[in-house]
Amino acid sequence: MKLKNSVLLAAGAMLLPLMAKAQEASETVAEALEEGVASAAALGALNVEMVFIFNSLLFLLGGILVFWMAAGFAMLEAGFVRSKNVTMQLTKNVALFSLAAFLYYLIGFNLMYPGDGWIIEGWLGAFGPTVLEAVGITADEAADVEYASVGSDFFFQLMFCATTASIVSGALAERIKLNAFLVFVIVLTALIYPIQASWTWGEGFLDAAGFSDFAGSTIVHSVGGWAALVGALILGPRIGKYAKDGKVNPIPGSNLALATLGTFILWMGWFGFNGASQLAMGTIGDVADVSRIFANTNAAAAAGAIAALVLTQVMFKKADLTLMLNGALGGLVAITAEPLTPGLGMASLIGAVGGVIVVFAVPLLDKLKIDDVVGAIPVHLFAGIWGTLAVVLTNSDASLGTQIYGIIVIGAFVVVTSAVAWLVIKAAMGGIRVEAEAEVTGLDKTELGMEAYPDFTRG
Amino acid sequence: MKLKNSVLLAAGAMLLPLMAKAQEASETVAEALEEGVASAAALGALNVEMVFIFNSLLFLLGGILVFWMAAGFAMLEAGFVRSKNVTMQLTKNVALFSLAAFLYYLIGFNLMYPGDGWIIEGWLGAFGPTVLEAVGITADEAADVEYASVGSDFFFQLMFCATTASIVSGALAERIKLNAFLVFVIVLTALIYPIQASWTWGEGFLDAAGFSDFAGSTIVHSVGGWAALVGALILGPRIGKYAKDGKVNPIPGSNLALATLGTFILWMGWFGFNGASQLAMGTIGDVADVSRIFANTNAAAAAGAIAALVLTQVMFKKADLTLMLNGALGGLVAITAEPLTPGLGMASLIGAVGGVIVVFAVPLLDKLKIDDVVGAIPVHLFAGIWGTLAVVLTNSDASLGTQIYGIIVIGAFVVVTSAVAWLVIKAAMGGIRVEAEAEVTGLDKTELGMEAYPDFTRG
Amino acid sequence: MKLKNSVLLAAGAMLLPLMAKAQEASETVAEALEEGVASAAALGALNVEMVFIFNSLLFLLGGILVFWMAAGFAMLEAGFVRSKNVTMQLTKNVALFSLAAFLYYLIGFNLMYPGDGWIIEGWLGAFGPTVLEAVGITADEAADVEYASVGSDFFFQLMFCATTASIVSGALAERIKLNAFLVFVIVLTALIYPIQASWTWGEGFLDAAGFSDFAGSTIVHSVGGWAALVGALILGPRIGKYAKDGKVNPIPGSNLALATLGTFILWMGWFGFNGASQLAMGTIGDVADVSRIFANTNAAAAAGAIAALVLTQVMFKKADLTLMLNGALGGLVAITAEPLTPGLGMASLIGAVGGVIVVFAVPLLDKLKIDDVVGAIPVHLFAGIWGTLAVVLTNSDASLGTQIYGIIVIGAFVVVTSAVAWLVIKAAMGGIRVEAEAEVTGLDKTELGMEAYPDFTRG
Repeated sequence: MKLKNSVLLAAGAMLLPLMAKAQEASETVAEALEEGVASAAALGALNVEMVFIFNSLLFLLGGILVFWMAAGFAMLEAGFVRSKNVTMQLTKNVALFSLAAFLYYLIGFNLMYPGDGWIIEGWLGAFGPTVLEAVGITADEAADVEYASVGSDFFFQLMFCATTASIVSGALAERIKLNAFLVFVIVLTALIYPIQASWTWGEGFLDAAGFSDFAGSTIVHSVGGWAALVGALILGPRIGKYAKDGKVNPIPGSNLALATLGTFILWMGWFGFNGASQLAMGTIGDVADVSRIFANTNAAAAAGAIAALVLTQVMFKKADLTLMLNGALGGLVAITAEPLTPGLGMASLIGAVGGVIVVFAVPLLDKLKIDDVVGAIPVHLFAGIWGTLAVVLTNSDASLGTQIYGIIVIGAFVVVTSAVAWLVIKAAMGGIRVEAEAEVTGLDKTELGMEAYPDFTRG
Repeated sequence: MKLKNSVLLAAGAMLLPLMAKAQEASETVAEALEEGVASAAALGALNVEMVFIFNSLLFLLGGILVFWMAAGFAMLEAGFVRSKNVTMQLTKNVALFSLAAFLYYLIGFNLMYPGDGWIIEGWLGAFGPTVLEAVGITADEAADVEYASVGSDFFFQLMFCATTASIVSGALAERIKLNAFLVFVIVLTALIYPIQASWTWGEGFLDAAGFSDFAGSTIVHSVGGWAALVGALILGPRIGKYAKDGKVNPIPGSNLALATLGTFILWMGWFGFNGASQLAMGTIGDVADVSRIFANTNAAAAAGAIAALVLTQVMFKKADLTLMLNGALGGLVAITAEPLTPGLGMASLIGAVGGVIVVFAVPLLDKLKIDDVVGAIPVHLFAGIWGTLAVVLTNSDASLGTQIYGIIVIGAFVVVTSAVAWLVIKAAMGGIRVEAEAEVTGLDKTELGMEAYPDFTRG
Repeated sequence: MKLKNSVLLAAGAMLLPLMAKAQEASETVAEALEEGVASAAALGALNVEMVFIFNSLLFLLGGILVFWMAAGFAMLEAGFVRSKNVTMQLTKNVALFSLAAFLYYLIGFNLMYPGDGWIIEGWLGAFGPTVLEAVGITADEAADVEYASVGSDFFFQLMFCATTASIVSGALAERIKLNAFLVFVIVLTALIYPIQASWTWGEGFLDAAGFSDFAGSTIVHSVGGWAALVGALILGPRIGKYAKDGKVNPIPGSNLALATLGTFILWMGWFGFNGASQLAMGTIGDVADVSRIFANTNAAAAAGAIAALVLTQVMFKKADLTLMLNGALGGLVAITAEPLTPGLGMASLIGAVGGVIVVFAVPLLDKLKIDDVVGAIPVHLFAGIWGTLAVVLTNSDASLGTQIYGIIVIGAFVVVTSAVAWLVIKAAMGGIRVEAEAEVTGLDKTELGMEAYPDFTRG
């Protein structure tokens, strides 16, 4: 027993440091594992955070750029109307943006993105003002930490709603009453735009049906265009535009430098309009897609302008600046439904067709005696329809049938609701058109008592 | 002993690989731990780097946007003056921005952010030109790696200094001498602005007292407004503005399209002005806060415009574009002291009150025969005071007493130093006002020999 | 033996858990190591991804800003020509940008960045349209995951090509035929610009020689300037500009508000022009460098404006707005060759010299009877040469000899190719100049049948 004990003691003495070492090792291993897990979690959290920041930043940048388009429309329209109506056109543009901003906060945003708040599933969202995330949120407190901040999303989407209203103001210029127009803007931005937009972008029935409209050739531009068309039909043409003998009297815009500035502003803003509609920028794939969209958007605009420049020289023997400006805009509207999947060549082609459509549609409307002061209907409605159809050229997820279905459903909805709105406003406000005398004298003097260029005599 | 030895040998033989394994394990564990620590450090470094980049980027983007406001002021003012003074107003705006940029480099930046360089602790910083970080710095070489690059910070803050000067030029238009105005700009941007700004933003005594002014309703806008008010009082009204019988002769601006463009530019720039004043964008909380600020800033501007639009229709039976533009700007100034903590509804309310203030203050100034050509004093001073007080509505860290204290201290400082500056300039330069004949003929012909619109006759 | 066995058994019993523990430890250690390696790889991948996103974002933001410069040139030039030629000048600007965009896609981009596709190594790249990366790429699919997306790079570089063409249009305004000009634009943007740009930025022979031109004082601005100079010489001055008795008749621009707006736009766009030419923003060092560039670019512009303001007051006793605008632009062009290495003081000095050059060069050109309508040659060519030489003041990698070598080689190439192009166009199109009667009446009425300001009479 003595021997045994002594042997065991000796063995034990040899084992003790080993056991201690093993114990220590297993503890540090556990620590290392814990740290590894924590480290992996921290890495994942950092990744999520970075994606969230990049996506939110994309929306903020995109929102600023689309905001800037409101200035672009204001300048374009101020340049295309006669000097006697410039103050009125500017007033309408500032007012419509402000109203759109307020109403989109009050109703529009939640109506457009109902989430679980549909009143009629897929068709009509719930009403309620926008509530932003709290100040200084953590990842856990974010409404959707895998996406972007609510404030940035709201800010970006608001601008699209305002764009829709901007489109209408140009077509109806120089003859519509200020307040009649503004009441229509309220209806359009609080109800018509967000309801139909929810059908696709709010995961409504058109989205379920597979309708594809990346940044809104139909949902924004055609909607504005349809509302403008209905308004133009109800309002009638400007005095003197269409002579009794059928002759069309061109009424030149008063300031083509402003109109050109407006076009450059719109072109610039469109990078935000289409680019930020990727809705994400936090991965290599997303930022490369945003880059494609920028390049394609620019290519389509350039091609639209070139197409109009060449075509007007061929058709009229003279380059036509206003048609070239509208050609660029037609190219931009056309690429808006699918700015991602085309290559640069196809994007150029889609844009060029947009420009060609504008050149042919402007005289066509005049033949129909539809007086569209700035060419909003050719640019936003016709090129918008073309762009929505052209999605099928490069996006295999889209089908021609579904694209036509979406165009018709949204078009019918906007035509009917706009017509009702215009007619109700007409009945309730004693007409939507200013007196003939006021129209001839100019809205600035008669309706506002304030001229835009009082130091300059009119020729 | 033989048995004992053999047993021990056998046991030892069994233990040897175990010991080797344990040794190996403890070595790899140590390696793993080292790698883990290195990995955690690398992760932390990456995080710091990303935050640094995002914050610097926020300043660069914000700086560009606030730079753009200089163009906005130039267009607004060029649109609000008569055509005979447009070249002069443009000259002043380009010159004031350039001087502000140079002087903020030479003195302003270090005076505003004295760090450890106070001459009188909390009251007066030290003088010295700005030195940027070296080319291609590493994390260790950054002046403050937890914040942003010095260059981006300088670039952003410079623009605020220039904005302050822009505010003054509009109020004093159409009668002040070019060089008298520019000397005042030097005093304002090199001394008055940075000294008072250091009291709050440079961690001076107002900051210690708890004065809260997020993006500068008081520190930028009221300061510009006070300097403009003092200047307007010393300068006197334009010839013909106030008739001897007490009648106020409205002097309409020559180009409302430019004025509207200027307002849109300012509105756009304000997203940078307020948004980048969050001073950080590198976390979920910060980018969500920046988003809130964007949304609130837009809401306040829109509400200010709507308030002015409705109010002018109610009061004057006619919408007034210039008051609507200034209403939007009043809303923007009002939200500037606290664009973060309000919700969208409260932001709209704060902005609407800003717009209402402008509509009432413009005729009030005329009653006092203070001739403010563009409405800078109502917009920047009055709405700025309102906004600074309104901080207490939503920010529980602010107290009404401290806000009033800050408004009074800064107001008193600017009024006194501006008055001294104006009077010294007046004495030294033989008056700050152009000859009456030059004023009537127009500053462009008489002072500059260059008309802004030489091809167009004046009505 | 019994004893021995029992001792061994006992020892074995003690060892078993230890062995198990050791086994377990070595397994978890292996796991921890594997996780650590995976974690480090994930961290590295995240880092690469973030850098890629930041770099691409820099190009997109820079591209938008340089796009915006196209609007700046359009406004500057529309403001500097007489009202009878404004529509034409706007038409040229929209058309030249559109053509540049299309041709840079079709040929320019691949010609400028031949990669392995040189036809003559270092001298002439290969021809072929731009192909972007596929939709939704992963890190492995990126063309250069260490850099940025192809689309963003293309978008950014395209804008530089367009800028070169914009420079030419101003100098040749009011007398050149639209289509003659546009054909030259095609040659310039498809061939001349990308070929010479490839020599430095496409890693051609000038890059190998050590020629240093950060953002293009020579490669963009002087190239535009040389092409404009050659065009102006071949085209001849406007009718009435230089009287037979040697007197120079100043022909004032029709709208200095637009010209000032254009200058502000260019100044703003230049932050993208120079800042994004850092080509990277994904590290602390890069974003701090971008910040330096922003601050220096602004300092140089401000100093150029101040220098011109002071100098014109000293020389002509009157401040000259148009020279101050061109002084700011001269400062911007001058800092463009090296906006990174100077400190703010040196940047101000470089810019101020740029402004001084403009003030002296404008009358010098008139003495030489070279009629440059907007001052493009002083601003872009002369200040561009100065800026390219000034690189050696702060960048020790540059040598004066190599800078002069680059200036001469590029200058000679552009002068020769431009002259050939202009002369071929002149021969092929029956002259590049409109009829004298058309020039006197104005190009808007005669060439386009569309006035820019039809409501306003000309004085």
